[in-house]
Amino acid sequence: ALKAAPSEIRKALKGAGKNDILDPGYPYRQEIDSKTYDAKMDQLQLQLVRMMRDVVATRKRLVVLFEGRDAAGKGSTIERLRENLNPRSANIVALPTPSSREASQWYFQRYVDWLPAAGEIALFDRSWYNRGVVERIFGFSTEQQRNAFFRQLPSFEQTLVDDGIILVKLWLNVGRAEQMRRFLDRESDPLKQWKLSSIDVEGLAKWDEYTTAIRDTLNLSHSPIAPWTVIRSDDKRRARLAAIQTVLNAVDFAGKDVNAIGIPDPAITGGPELLDR
Amino acid sequence: ALKAAPSEIRKALKGAGKNDILDPGYPYRQEIDSKTYDAKMDQLQLQLVRMMRDVVATRKRLVVLFEGRDAAGKGSTIERLRENLNPRSANIVALPTPSSREASQWYFQRYVDWLPAAGEIALFDRSWYNRGVVERIFGFSTEQQRNAFFRQLPSFEQTLVDDGIILVKLWLNVGRAEQMRRFLDRESDPLKQWKLSSIDVEGLAKWDEYTTAIRDTLNLSHSPIAPWTVIRSDDKRRARLAAIQTVLNAVDFAGKDVNAIGIPDPAITGGPELLDR
Amino acid sequence: ALKAAPSEIRKALKGAGKNDILDPGYPYRQEIDSKTYDAKMDQLQLQLVRMMRDVVATRKRLVVLFEGRDAAGKGSTIERLRENLNPRSANIVALPTPSSREASQWYFQRYVDWLPAAGEIALFDRSWYNRGVVERIFGFSTEQQRNAFFRQLPSFEQTLVDDGIILVKLWLNVGRAEQMRRFLDRESDPLKQWKLSSIDVEGLAKWDEYTTAIRDTLNLSHSPIAPWTVIRSDDKRRARLAAIQTVLNAVDFAGKDVNAIGIPDPAITGGPELLDR
Amino acid sequence: ALKAAPSEIRKALKGAGKNDILDPGYPYRQEIDSKTYDAKMDQLQLQLVRMMRDVVATRKRLVVLFEGRDAAGKGSTIERLRENLNPRSANIVALPTPSSREASQWYFQRYVDWLPAAGEIALFDRSWYNRGVVERIFGFSTEQQRNAFFRQLPSFEQTLVDDGIILVKLWLNVGRAEQMRRFLDRESDPLKQWKLSSIDVEGLAKWDEYTTAIRDTLNLSHSPIAPWTVIRSDDKRRARLAAIQTVLNAVDFAGKDVNAIGIPDPAITGGPELLDR
Ligand SMILES: Nc1ncnc2c1ncn2[C@@H]1O[C@H](COP(=O)(O)OP(=O)(O)O)[C@@H](O)[C@H]1O
Ligand SMILES: Nc1ncnc2c1ncn2[C@@H]1O[C@H](COP(=O)(O)OP(=O)(O)O)[C@@H](O)[C@H]1O
Ligand SMILES: Nc1ncnc2c1ncn2[C@@H]1O[C@H](COP(=O)(O)OP(=O)(O)O)[C@@H](O)[C@H]1O
Ligand SMILES: Nc1ncnc2c1ncn2[C@@H]1O[C@H](COP(=O)(O)O)[C@@H](O)[C@H]1O
Repeated sequence: ALKAAPSEIRKALKGAGKNDILDPGYPYRQEIDSKTYDAKMDQLQLQLVRMMRDVVATRKRLVVLFEGRDAAGKGSTIERLRENLNPRSANIVALPTPSSREASQWYFQRYVDWLPAAGEIALFDRSWYNRGVVERIFGFSTEQQRNAFFRQLPSFEQTLVDDGIILVKLWLNVGRAEQMRRFLDRESDPLKQWKLSSIDVEGLAKWDEYTTAIRDTLNLSHSPIAPWTVIRSDDKRRARLAAIQTVLNAVDFAGKDVNAIGIPDPAITGGPELLDR
Repeated sequence: ALKAAPSEIRKALKGAGKNDILDPGYPYRQEIDSKTYDAKMDQLQLQLVRMMRDVVATRKRLVVLFEGRDAAGKGSTIERLRENLNPRSANIVALPTPSSREASQWYFQRYVDWLPAAGEIALFDRSWYNRGVVERIFGFSTEQQRNAFFRQLPSFEQTLVDDGIILVKLWLNVGRAEQMRRFLDRESDPLKQWKLSSIDVEGLAKWDEYTTAIRDTLNLSHSPIAPWTVIRSDDKRRARLAAIQTVLNAVDFAGKDVNAIGIPDPAITGGPELLDR
Repeated sequence: ALKAAPSEIRKALKGAGKNDILDPGYPYRQEIDSKTYDAKMDQLQLQLVRMMRDVVATRKRLVVLFEGRDAAGKGSTIERLRENLNPRSANIVALPTPSSREASQWYFQRYVDWLPAAGEIALFDRSWYNRGVVERIFGFSTEQQRNAFFRQLPSFEQTLVDDGIILVKLWLNVGRAEQMRRFLDRESDPLKQWKLSSIDVEGLAKWDEYTTAIRDTLNLSHSPIAPWTVIRSDDKRRARLAAIQTVLNAVDFAGKDVNAIGIPDPAITGGPELLDR
Repeated sequence: ALKAAPSEIRKALKGAGKNDILDPGYPYRQEIDSKTYDAKMDQLQLQLVRMMRDVVATRKRLVVLFEGRDAAGKGSTIERLRENLNPRSANIVALPTPSSREASQWYFQRYVDWLPAAGEIALFDRSWYNRGVVERIFGFSTEQQRNAFFRQLPSFEQTLVDDGIILVKLWLNVGRAEQMRRFLDRESDPLKQWKLSSIDVEGLAKWDEYTTAIRDTLNLSHSPIAPWTVIRSDDKRRARLAAIQTVLNAVDFAGKDVNAIGIPDPAITGGPELLDR
């Protein structure tokens, strides 16, 4: 199934070391080393716990959207973000394919159902942005529905922000060779095979369509009030650190240590313009 | 409890005949006679049934909001509207007081849950407009929450309309003496006593506060895209006819007979300006 | 569609007066006269209002199941029962066809969702008994699922009763000629056509299958702890009175007037044995 | 807060090595070494992935209840069990304190809402057994409610099993000194402080009440059809292995390798009798 990889990708994969970054345009040639990573992650975890405590105590509401191509690292980033948070207060929202009744309702309706109450955090593993990307590529919705989605989107998100919900939108961006490497990993690793869905495999041949759909989606939904943070995730550990830093920086909380948090690495973190690098 | 009625109201009530309209500013002196009413209602019921069939067949979604002071006639108008409609497709939504968790969520969230799927009609007996009126009068929410509500309202309703939902907003407006008469009726009629809540009784002394809150609410929420239809409901039968006509006129459906429907009586039907007459 | 009526039924229908009872086995030859009916209904409505007040005050929970063949009078009986009850406390539960996800869950699950909280009344227009009758006739579920249903049913209902829920199960039983008359009415009355579903029409030819399925269902589910009240509903008014009386008698409430309520007419009210009369 | 530890516990804690087991009655003196643990866990993870695939493919439904005293290791066992499962098919259910409306409903109602559909796994982090233990100790429900719970429990669970749901009930049992050690850990570890709730701290002084409540609960709910597996979790790693093995052994699935799974260590796994060792 995964044999169709274009030749330049095969070439990139061949001979690359485990920790080598495949994409020549990525600012680092190697994955961050584990010691640096672990030390930084420990610091961030501590800040996350403080943040959670503050969210509960001051009744904040936090929504984080995790988006990105398949194998971009959404799931594992969520896991790291969540691991020291109280499961009764921090929910992962990973909605299944809509039922036909749901499909006939206002598109945002089933997502609204999972918005947080006071003192809660909702971590969306994919989100309403499905309409702009995967549903477009695979024809799961019509162009008319997509247009309606983009018309309604700005005021929907503005309303959430206006209401005091802290909204963080993360786009994990992975290069083509790295995605392929992860797919191959999934294919060969019995623990990960389930992650390789038919949509992933069919999506392989649609790299460019995805690129267009993603660019259109980000352009139409990036705004001062609800900005995207794009994180280049060819190095998945650097990406996780940057994602968690972005979340921490978005929330004010008692005991927040801005030095300990630091700023997300600007070489891999930015706005939609980063898609093209 | 109801003894506090101001003297001019007591006077109006005293000696008024059962079918007399109490409010001297109302354009009719007497309730419509039953024969005329029944004949017209029969025609409208027929149209409603056709409308329902079309809503199901063409997968329309219809939302009707029924608002108005207590005893304005919301409940009985809904009953007449609904009586020949399929209960599996037409729902009455009469939400209870929010739980404390709900109260901490996005205000519109629990209403969104009840928006119709394709082929469905949702009849809201009171609605999100609680925030602008009863919650203001009784302090169930803060001024800050009310401001947020009015900021978010236009784009919320515009989104529903943009999505293709047919939104009809009916404000039943009853005069002070007529409200009092109905409260007295409720008090003395054992079948209706349950309708007289403590909020009604306490509301009596707050007529003017209600008036201000209602005017503010309608001013802030009446727009070309989501207009209010105000219906003077001192004569509850004329009001029911006008309400049903308004709904029927808002929907295109196979077999619609515009002559049979007619236009709602302009003497009692209009926009927010009607509040002041 | 309705032309297939057997000849003895056509004969019964032909020449029968509007108020004549068609079934020769029914204990009355004529519908109850409206004056008697209205007077009795007024009394019962008053008791219902008292019952509702008590349910709220003493935090009772009441579940009433309305079952019976199509056109047996479930919907209109519910309407009369409910008309003076507070819609925020008394809900009609008329569930649509299950989604495929629901169909794969524990059968009772979607019904459990609608069980009342303290101070609430749930009126089920059809119920879990769909599995025993309509789903059997039309093959909407397998025999294996039906067997599981009947195995689980007794302890499910016993649990509800054990929990303090007042459970009233009403089976409205209509004769074949009367059902046909009502179907013909629905067919010719534009206000009622929507009530005539394809299931009704196809069900016509399956009278005997229904009879068997109903008898089996009642036999397997009638017990001292969760008994059926079967009400012969060829005269729909007598049936409504008997249904409301049955509900009132099942609940203890402040201000209950047992004389005003009276006992349901024993000539048309009884246990499953009544099916065969 | 945690100072009240009885003297024999302080003694046990003092001088104990990080990997020493505190409870002298535990069958091992040391935690399992990481190499053995990791190797075994890897094998089990592979089996879990196969199990998940089979659950989806053959539309099984699996419910696993995780119960035990605070700090018994429920949360981390669930994490290990779940880490390679598809989050769209395997849900963690960690319900918050019931709202007052929920508290007035049938006790099982809010849990029923989370029962799995076909192809789904529900992992309950605490469950309906709250009623028998924590609610009893802290007076969150009445004795009458508790009696009702135990009356209804057997048929509730039997129904789930009858319906084809695979039900696994795990009781993680931790000794007093080990619980104290984990509480102290939580107190001193900023990443874990949130885990130490007021209920935990107050629970400390109620060890014996817990013991009684747990024993009563297991006695009343252990049956051939819905048996408890008690796992001594003083060594949390051995406990995790045994828990996962128990789940795997409860499900038949394509590609199941019984040798790779093995049987849960009988020295720490058994029925309710294990509570007293
Ligand atoms: N028919 C469909 N209509 C709408 N969305 C769909 C449909 N089929 C799949 N999707 C969505 O596409 C997304 C990607 O699917 P998939 O790659 O299988 O999931 P995952 O991201 O969990 O690996 C999911 O959010 C899924 O719900
Ligand atoms: N495919 C199906 N699976 C299960 N139940 C169904 C299915 N189709 C219809 N039903 C149920 O059969 C019952 C009778 O249908 P119908 O006569 O159309 O409704 P009503 O009783 O509202 O007139 C309804 O409760 C409906 O939900
Ligand atoms: N007032 C209450 N009524 C019923 N259950 C409660 C109440 N307060 C707490 N609980 C339950 O007691 C259990 C233990 O509480 P806690 O130790 O705070 O949670 P956790 O196990 O998540 O650390 C939880 O399941 C919680 O829902
Ligand atoms: N504490 C409250 N907070 C918000 N809304 C309330 C509250 N109490 C009553 N209401 C609402 O006020 C409206 C009028 O109440 P009533 O007249 O009692 O039916 C209903 O829609 C109630 O839901």
